[in-house]
Amino acid sequence: MSGKLSIPPAEIRAIASAAVEFLASYFETLAERPVVVPATSQSIRQALDEPLPQDGADFQALLDTLRDVISRYSRHNSHPRFFGYVSSPGTPITAVGTMLASALNINVTCWRSAPSGTELEHLTINWLKEMLGYPAAAAGLLTSGGSMANFAALAAARSAKAPANVVRDGVAAAGTRMCVYVSEEGHFSVAKAAGMLGLGEANVRSVKTGDRLQISLADLDRLVQQDLAAGHLPFCVVANAGTTATGAFDPIGDLADFSRRHNLWLHVDAAYGGFAALAPSARHLFARIGEADSVTLDPHKWLYLPIGCGCVLYRDPAAARAAFSHGAEYTRTIGLERDEAFAFWDYGPELSRPFRALDLWLLVKYAGARQLGEAIEQNIACAKYFEQLVRSSADFEMLAAVELSIFCFRYAPPGFQGDLDALNERILVALQRGGSTYLSNARVHGHFALRGCVLNYRTTLRDMEIVLDDVRRAASSL
Amino acid sequence: MSGKLSIPPAEIRAIASAAVEFLASYFETLAERPVVVPATSQSIRQALDEPLPQDGADFQALLDTLRDVISRYSRHNSHPRFFGYVSSPGTPITAVGTMLASALNINVTCWRSAPSGTELEHLTINWLKEMLGYPAAAAGLLTSGGSMANFAALAAARSAKAPANVVRDGVAAAGTRMCVYVSEEGHFSVAKAAGMLGLGEANVRSVKTGDRLQISLADLDRLVQQDLAAGHLPFCVVANAGTTATGAFDPIGDLADFSRRHNLWLHVDAAYGGFAALAPSARHLFARIGEADSVTLDPHKWLYLPIGCGCVLYRDPAAARAAFSHGAEYTRTIGLERDEAFAFWDYGPELSRPFRALDLWLLVKYAGARQLGEAIEQNIACAKYFEQLVRSSADFEMLAAVELSIFCFRYAPPGFQGDLDALNERILVALQRGGSTYLSNARVHGHFALRGCVLNYRTTLRDMEIVLDDVRRAASSL
Repeated sequence: MSGKLSIPPAEIRAIASAAVEFLASYFETLAERPVVVPATSQSIRQALDEPLPQDGADFQALLDTLRDVISRYSRHNSHPRFFGYVSSPGTPITAVGTMLASALNINVTCWRSAPSGTELEHLTINWLKEMLGYPAAAAGLLTSGGSMANFAALAAARSAKAPANVVRDGVAAAGTRMCVYVSEEGHFSVAKAAGMLGLGEANVRSVKTGDRLQISLADLDRLVQQDLAAGHLPFCVVANAGTTATGAFDPIGDLADFSRRHNLWLHVDAAYGGFAALAPSARHLFARIGEADSVTLDPHKWLYLPIGCGCVLYRDPAAARAAFSHGAEYTRTIGLERDEAFAFWDYGPELSRPFRALDLWLLVKYAGARQLGEAIEQNIACAKYFEQLVRSSADFEMLAAVELSIFCFRYAPPGFQGDLDALNERILVALQRGGSTYLSNARVHGHFALRGCVLNYRTTLRDMEIVLDDVRRAASSL
Repeated sequence: MSGKLSIPPAEIRAIASAAVEFLASYFETLAERPVVVPATSQSIRQALDEPLPQDGADFQALLDTLRDVISRYSRHNSHPRFFGYVSSPGTPITAVGTMLASALNINVTCWRSAPSGTELEHLTINWLKEMLGYPAAAAGLLTSGGSMANFAALAAARSAKAPANVVRDGVAAAGTRMCVYVSEEGHFSVAKAAGMLGLGEANVRSVKTGDRLQISLADLDRLVQQDLAAGHLPFCVVANAGTTATGAFDPIGDLADFSRRHNLWLHVDAAYGGFAALAPSARHLFARIGEADSVTLDPHKWLYLPIGCGCVLYRDPAAARAAFSHGAEYTRTIGLERDEAFAFWDYGPELSRPFRALDLWLLVKYAGARQLGEAIEQNIACAKYFEQLVRSSADFEMLAAVELSIFCFRYAPPGFQGDLDALNERILVALQRGGSTYLSNARVHGHFALRGCVLNYRTTLRDMEIVLDDVRRAASSL
């Protein structure tokens, strides 16, 4: 009866071997594929749609659908010239690791349910702290991504700074508006978190930025004073350690000083930029990261892990527990000592949690931190090289200096009299349809920018030259 | 330089083949393993601990650690006599599927970033609605688990029923306490969600239950009237479609009628029980599920998927958008039609999202819904058989009737004069250490219960007989 659920070892070997062939061939042919094949929702849906299937199918037929439809019409985030958003390529070794995690099917809720899974997560969190230079006594856990990590950090900040027990009695019990400060270049997950937490998106103050798109301390001070004068409660400032649009890096040390003066929780959103700490050229940016109350990191960005592996670190473990800890009979630990009574649900929003630490452990062990750091440094070098190429080209201009591995530029042919925003928006669509290079967009100092983020160890200096050729070709196709 | 990141196809094949051998051997030897091997935090930590490794290691050495430490000291949730909590065994086919999802590394944020991934998630959500009998026009998305699904549903309920825009202006703008109702048997994630959402855990009313541990409509009415009299705003009732402790199933139809009368959002927490809809014997329980405003399902529970795949369904898609939708320049879709502009972040808390739908699609396609339904029916049959065994044994007693596949009982030898709670608590610890059967605990009508949940297609009637023998052996070992 359970013939397709509990399959015999020979069948497991046959199925898994076919899948391994798919895997090897996928990575082998990656660079020759278009980054994305143009399609419509309707065309893909027609190829997949069917009512709930009552009977089972052969694995080979499913693998064919995977190749001909699912893989064909996916955007290949591991292609060497995929530069959209902030997207990791994943690695072959972690693809294998994910299979092993899925087979063990460890639910990393707590030590009792996942003794080795919990220990491995503690270990990898320690490694992340070491990479960043964050205090050894800090707590942390892996999340599905950066948005949930920012959410968890703001929840901890809310509990730490509210004048009431807001988890028990609700945010209204604080009796005042609790205000968060983040630069206008901050990620939208900060405002979204404030909305979810009942603080209100409107109570997230958008702080002006300067020339290099870093937070303006003067404007921050002005906004805090304004809220204090109105009787509100400023309680948290979010520093961007690499903004999504341009990679701008807010001055963490200055913000730590400011936060201390005003009793603010300092959260550092290092979802994109955090692992630049492994690159010698960027290391200095993290000199005072240890003063932050919490940090968001995304191993599934610049540590090359597959989706979804984010991370939140809390300098004071008790602050996280105040936000998330909750007792229930079936979560009560019986007959266990302190370390064995540890539960991740006391530190974050989830109860069930996949075994995210296995891939993290496997990749760091297999490649070693040095090689990871070299790859990150090479990504930065690619972006800087691209900046040089643009600055020496008559038909392109940079819209922001390269800070980490993000480049924002536009096509601006000499003598062009029309609307450069509209032109570049059309170029972007044509470029994405072309399939050789994939960029996304940003608004920089009011202008529409073609934007790329180098986050792939496969990307070479030669690829950066191809980007410019591809953009020129897209422009001439209009 | 990126030698351990972008590895050549021959090396991928070698590594993946070794992993496949691990996989096949793991499933082959599963039933002979102890469910869990007793260990301490310290002993496991000593076997894994090391500072951040700078240099890489061989894959084979890592596989050895995986076998000798990580797998050895994990609790084997796919063992046929693992009955703890509500835990899926996973399947071999989904282990392979997870590897393929990780290789493609699709980030299912929105259609633009994941054309086929988005379509496949829509398709599998449609299948889940079909399994449950939920309206075709409903929206839904996959989450990391049931806690996050309950959180998302309550966020939608909060926005739908608040007399103000609480996402924008904060929960305090509602100007009243917003109250949630759930039976005392409800999952702790409901109260936790209320805490996170700024509503306050104290504003979740614990409704009494009757003999069969279903919600008392009289007590619900009493609590709602009390809150109305106090000027509070009752806005949401949560029905348990299978409680965690005993599998009790609240009367959905009665709660739908009540909710309509009082303008309450009806959320059904079917994290555990939802897929009983596929079993003919339990189908009738879901007759009026279509009247619920939202539903939590956990494919990673009774649909046998590996961790983490939860699901939330919203009858009115606009209610979810009101809670989660948020614009930002880099999330703006350019040059796309309506279906192609679809974004999951408008419907839930996450931005980055792993490709959870692939495993769901693969398992349902490979096994077919009929075989899945038969396996679920067999799980129910195992629990009912166990109940018979207990009722015909002089030294055991049931503490609750079996409703779905959960059994709650205790050892109560004739003539025993001591504390049965203390005795059974000690039995549980001894049983878990024994490694042949794994139960967890619950409190039922004030008594300490040994509790099991049959959720594994590998479990047979014979296993249920072994459970009783194992408990007797644990008792005699004390």
